[in-house]
Amino acid sequence: MVGQSGGRTLVEKVIAKAAGLPSVRAGDLVTAKVDLAFAHDSSGPRRWRPLLEELGVGLWDPSKVAIVSDHYVPAVDAESAAILKSTRDFARDYGVGAFFDMVGICHLVLPEHGLIRPGAFIAGGDSHTPTAGAFGAYAAGYGATDMAAIAATGETWLAVPETIRVEWTGSFAPGVTAKDVMLFLCRELGMDNAFKAVEFAGPLVEAMPMAERMVLANMAAELGAETGVVAPDAVTFAYLAARGAPVTDEAGALALHSDGDASYAAVHRFDASVLAPQIASPHSPANTRDAAEFGEVRIDQAYIGACVGAKIEDLRMAADVLKGRRVAPGVRLLVAPGSARTAELAAREGVMETLLAAGAVLMPSGCGACAGMGAGILAEGETCISSTNRNFQGRMGHAGANVYLGSPYAVAAAATAGRIVDPRPYLTGAA
Amino acid sequence: MVGQSGGRTLVEKVIAKAAGLPSVRAGDLVTAKVDLAFAHDSSGPRRWRPLLEELGVGLWDPSKVAIVSDHYVPAVDAESAAILKSTRDFARDYGVGAFFDMVGICHLVLPEHGLIRPGAFIAGGDSHTPTAGAFGAYAAGYGATDMAAIAATGETWLAVPETIRVEWTGSFAPGVTAKDVMLFLCRELGMDNAFKAVEFAGPLVEAMPMAERMVLANMAAELGAETGVVAPDAVTFAYLAARGAPVTDEAGALALHSDGDASYAAVHRFDASVLAPQIASPHSPANTRDAAEFGEVRIDQAYIGACVGAKIEDLRMAADVLKGRRVAPGVRLLVAPGSARTAELAAREGVMETLLAAGAVLMPSGCGACAGMGAGILAEGETCISSTNRNFQGRMGHAGANVYLGSPYAVAAAATAGRIVDPRPYLTGAA
Repeated sequence: MVGQSGGRTLVEKVIAKAAGLPSVRAGDLVTAKVDLAFAHDSSGPRRWRPLLEELGVGLWDPSKVAIVSDHYVPAVDAESAAILKSTRDFARDYGVGAFFDMVGICHLVLPEHGLIRPGAFIAGGDSHTPTAGAFGAYAAGYGATDMAAIAATGETWLAVPETIRVEWTGSFAPGVTAKDVMLFLCRELGMDNAFKAVEFAGPLVEAMPMAERMVLANMAAELGAETGVVAPDAVTFAYLAARGAPVTDEAGALALHSDGDASYAAVHRFDASVLAPQIASPHSPANTRDAAEFGEVRIDQAYIGACVGAKIEDLRMAADVLKGRRVAPGVRLLVAPGSARTAELAAREGVMETLLAAGAVLMPSGCGACAGMGAGILAEGETCISSTNRNFQGRMGHAGANVYLGSPYAVAAAATAGRIVDPRPYLTGAA
Repeated sequence: MVGQSGGRTLVEKVIAKAAGLPSVRAGDLVTAKVDLAFAHDSSGPRRWRPLLEELGVGLWDPSKVAIVSDHYVPAVDAESAAILKSTRDFARDYGVGAFFDMVGICHLVLPEHGLIRPGAFIAGGDSHTPTAGAFGAYAAGYGATDMAAIAATGETWLAVPETIRVEWTGSFAPGVTAKDVMLFLCRELGMDNAFKAVEFAGPLVEAMPMAERMVLANMAAELGAETGVVAPDAVTFAYLAARGAPVTDEAGALALHSDGDASYAAVHRFDASVLAPQIASPHSPANTRDAAEFGEVRIDQAYIGACVGAKIEDLRMAADVLKGRRVAPGVRLLVAPGSARTAELAAREGVMETLLAAGAVLMPSGCGACAGMGAGILAEGETCISSTNRNFQGRMGHAGANVYLGSPYAVAAAATAGRIVDPRPYLTGAA
């Protein structure tokens, strides 16, 4: 522990509230009441129903349960069509409070609808549940059986995690993004930070829009952490207010900030102004180095998608690079907007026209190829650069395919260059 | 035979040219030289290569061969990814003259690129090859083995088919389309017109844009005919000129028109002005009646896609209905633009924004769910209305699903009504 004092971290404060205790400290075993339980079509209803039926109970509080069909969408075979149908049936039969059917990825759809609240304790049936931590929630992923029990009882026990604090000073050079931060951190901190929370702080983070903060929290999963968090502030409040879900107790949310004398498992400090665009090589997000260090790595596919890399802000980055350019011959660029709202915005803003004019192929909103589902799967020997968060072997198709990870800038630049490049010379400032 | 004279049909004239004979008559056995041979990723290279290798030959004339990857796009699993890769490898190894990789459906991409020529003899590895007949070509579908032989030799033998002439007078009421004509004809003429060509003629057809003529020719396949044709004229020439491929011998093309005293297997005459929007019920395009006759047929999915129903003109029809409306709760509307150019145009024109604002899910360009591939597959017991050309049992997913066919107007109107309706009260004139 760095420091031994009376202060508390944001994570300790949120968990104390959920546990109904005046305060908790890392290591304490507590039972927390869940403010929001969610799952998707893969992890949720088809796993929950048998357990709920066996227990003979319904959802503990349907108004606090959200289901998002985002994995098997749209169905590519009769089996996935049946899974989607059973998900709809469950939502109806159990009175699920918020059901989103094929309108995007859960980690984007829930914030878009104002359902992610500062200070909330959120249990999600997906490994990238930490995304919600960008709003100052405690949000952790659970396996299907644990989630079914949470859906039945509204409670879960946990050991309060220690927090690793990561402070970023400085500001980004054009073409550098939160994604580069996270790929860099996967290398610097490694991917074995189990049973820890990661708090992202410092002037760089405070200046970030929610979309970029969500990238930080999302890829806490790749650090191996329980969750990632960013302290809620005026940026958070403005985001939620704009979505018709204002925070009524802003003072209470601000009081969740980590105390100055809180105890951390570690504190790391980095300067964003010296960070260059990063690329992770196969088959690990920790296998990262500067994009400029890559030699002649030719690509077959460029993929913009997933919860971490297909928000409207990500599509704008791609459009910035691709404005007036074409995808290189022999390369295919697939773009799967993260949500229906994202797709609609992209159409309205002209971003979609720019991407299509460059030769992009538009894909439906959903987890898609990032989860090895839907369209965009790779053949043996193919090379892909992707704005997704994981490049584990075989995840996007054949085990003999190679996936590199980068920011939407880096993916778009590679698509037009035909090989992995530093995206900075490709910025046009047009989007 | 109706009439016995010296005149020749358009089909007889085109085949005579391909056979190098002064004239042929229906029933003659001839060997024709092929002007264009094409296939897609399902029917083409993966079937051709083993045969070509066994024969130890290449393509007879690579400049006259086109390959379009439109079935397995984008890949949904490692197997389809491998098929796409082998298609690319074939195109490179055999020097294929025109290779279109994931930019849309062959029957739309080839005309878009000016490759369908009046008077050409076209052999295609797909049952909807007759689409090209809209340009006054003779275009017939062949099985993979026949196509491999054609690719090796550039020749095929055939019995010159008799022509069924279908003349349409009058003009459409708003909301009635070429698709309604073809669903009506599937019922009126049946689907057993094997070894026949169908020529569409009359003032209605002469006034149609190419997009609508392509619908007529396309669904000659559903009539069971060898091909469908429309005589080339100024509309045809303007279409090709606008795509940078003007017809240099317009007089020669006009001379292909059926002679006034040509012999037909049958002549049918219909009045378009009394035609109402048509809907085909499961599981046959011939199972058609007026849309207004349907009672309460609720739908789960509405699908706009395929070679027959996803051109920019079709998307505009859907947008006309959906402008300012929303897809009904519990209904999903999937839109798969027929080609990359279609998608780009839809983005530029605002059509895409209208569809997305209504709640449509955008899909990649390709044959998709119409061919039981890609996304949009149906579960047991689900009901879909589709702008595609075939509703055979099990084609779009589970054999226990029900698929109705209609025009893009009818599909869009059903999507917003939640049930099958006559689309005419839903027209807004907005797109």
